[in-house]
Amino acid sequence: MFRPQIKVVDCTIRDGGLMNKSKFTLETVRNIYSACSRSGVDIIELGYKNSKEHFSPDHYGDWRFCEEDMLRKATDGIEKTAKIAVMQDAHKASADDILPKSESIIDIVRVATYVKDIDKAIALANNATNKGYEATINIMAISHVLERDLDEALQQIESETSIIACYIVDSFGALYSEDIDYLVHKFQRYLKTKEIGIHCHNSMQLAYANTIEAIIKNVNYLDGTLYGFGRAAGNCPLELLLAFLKNPKFDINPIIEVIESTILPLRKEMEWGYNIPYMIAGMLNTHPLDALKYVDTQREGGAVEGYVKFFEHMRAEEVST
Amino acid sequence: MFRPQIKVVDCTIRDGGLMNKSKFTLETVRNIYSACSRSGVDIIELGYKNSKEHFSPDHYGDWRFCEEDMLRKATDGIEKTAKIAVMQDAHKASADDILPKSESIIDIVRVATYVKDIDKAIALANNATNKGYEATINIMAISHVLERDLDEALQQIESETSIIACYIVDSFGALYSEDIDYLVHKFQRYLKTKEIGIHCHNSMQLAYANTIEAIIKNVNYLDGTLYGFGRAAGNCPLELLLAFLKNPKFDINPIIEVIESTILPLRKEMEWGYNIPYMIAGMLNTHPLDALKYVDTQREGGAVEGYVKFFEHMRAEEVST
Repeated sequence: MFRPQIKVVDCTIRDGGLMNKSKFTLETVRNIYSACSRSGVDIIELGYKNSKEHFSPDHYGDWRFCEEDMLRKATDGIEKTAKIAVMQDAHKASADDILPKSESIIDIVRVATYVKDIDKAIALANNATNKGYEATINIMAISHVLERDLDEALQQIESETSIIACYIVDSFGALYSEDIDYLVHKFQRYLKTKEIGIHCHNSMQLAYANTIEAIIKNVNYLDGTLYGFGRAAGNCPLELLLAFLKNPKFDINPIIEVIESTILPLRKEMEWGYNIPYMIAGMLNTHPLDALKYVDTQREGGAVEGYVKFFEHMRAEEVST
Repeated sequence: MFRPQIKVVDCTIRDGGLMNKSKFTLETVRNIYSACSRSGVDIIELGYKNSKEHFSPDHYGDWRFCEEDMLRKATDGIEKTAKIAVMQDAHKASADDILPKSESIIDIVRVATYVKDIDKAIALANNATNKGYEATINIMAISHVLERDLDEALQQIESETSIIACYIVDSFGALYSEDIDYLVHKFQRYLKTKEIGIHCHNSMQLAYANTIEAIIKNVNYLDGTLYGFGRAAGNCPLELLLAFLKNPKFDINPIIEVIESTILPLRKEMEWGYNIPYMIAGMLNTHPLDALKYVDTQREGGAVEGYVKFFEHMRAEEVST
């Protein structure tokens, strides 16, 4: 038995782009796009479509902007079986960067937002749907959101947009299964005409388990990345997600093959996955920024304080904020 | 709010001993024993108490046998706040190796068994309780057990022993939360006078999540290891478990400190944690033996077939068994 409404979304290039300023080679992107297409993944997110006012092309790679010609180069000659998505950050993107649908191979514009920027997010989502795309709104840092603000945002999303899905984004990897349960029920109460999505981070090794919890509660848009590739502790591993889902259309072979050929080599330049600094950030429900600095410094051979000192310092910050 | 009945068990030396034939230095064992004691862990398992007929002391380290003098050397001078446990494998241990309680600092004998060896396990558990110890029976490879055999074993355990707890052991890391739920309910139906324990492996990154699921269902004996150290994909990380539990008696600081000082250096010699071969073994619900061989060969620079070939080979084995 499987639920045909379920949509699996690969975010490898987009989320992984936070680790390398979206500087992937064209070959890497093509390999990932091809493998995900062959595996039956429903939606493939090829990067950010953010504003060059916020990100200098001198410092960021092509997949921070997803210009139409690059998207075509990434996908030409590969059978299109999945929808193509890009992400716009509500506070770092411009409506003008989205072409009319007839001029683009993009299918879905996903708008990532903090609750405080919900009006900007709604404007960007409506810009995309008005131009002929499907759109989602992905509410980031949800473990930091005030209940009342979230309720109001969800009401607005339901009444002011025609997005296909609204996402719970556990940016800090701080949620437990009971939190997922609570949030999904809240989203379902407000969003009568939209699907719900889930995007988890793995700071406490719960990204996959929380995604399963969401599936059980009828969430249908499921984000994952190849081998969990993504910032800090990374994401829900796509290969595990496909292993769990019963729909026979999914084929895990292209996924484990591309992990071997294309993702594992990236580990020479970048490190992601569970470790103690990220776990501390997750358990304290904070942004992994300080933990990332810690891990980077250590990786480059720099001196770092011990774990216990780091923990104390993070707790002190928690009290002072 | 916390449940005072909960007992946290550190199995680092015992389970990790499957990676290095239980050849830990005395210093490593003392560091771990001391840190776990200071952190408020309830039970510390210092190794196997298995038979020298099955394991030659020429090839296995001290912590495969846990002779009384070694246990004393490992613990002398460290304040005893936790109970000391050892494990006997039902099919590889001898009742005679257990001294009368008055001659030993061991508190708990944990008997690991396959369902087929349940009579041996009961005999060993009763041997331990008769000699004055507490005992547990840990049912391994539970994802392979025939329902009828398990029912019968649980009936026997309830009526023929006075163990303190009976464990669900997910040896293959193959269980999902709904399986945990199902098994816990079954154990609770049969075991009216015993506590239930949970021991998970991390093949599919679910060890911690499944342990939480068990806690929610009133399981009180919880196994973990430092940084998840253990065979193949490893175990439920003890540091995450302590982060989840609310009892203020737990202090995570000694745990993250000993991970840094004593566990991370072990990674130079041994590798554990999530990877694709272990994940394949988990999703196919098989022993990680072939995956271990694969990973070891690769680590030593030997030639291995690709992931897809390995997956095909594992699936072929599954059909033929």
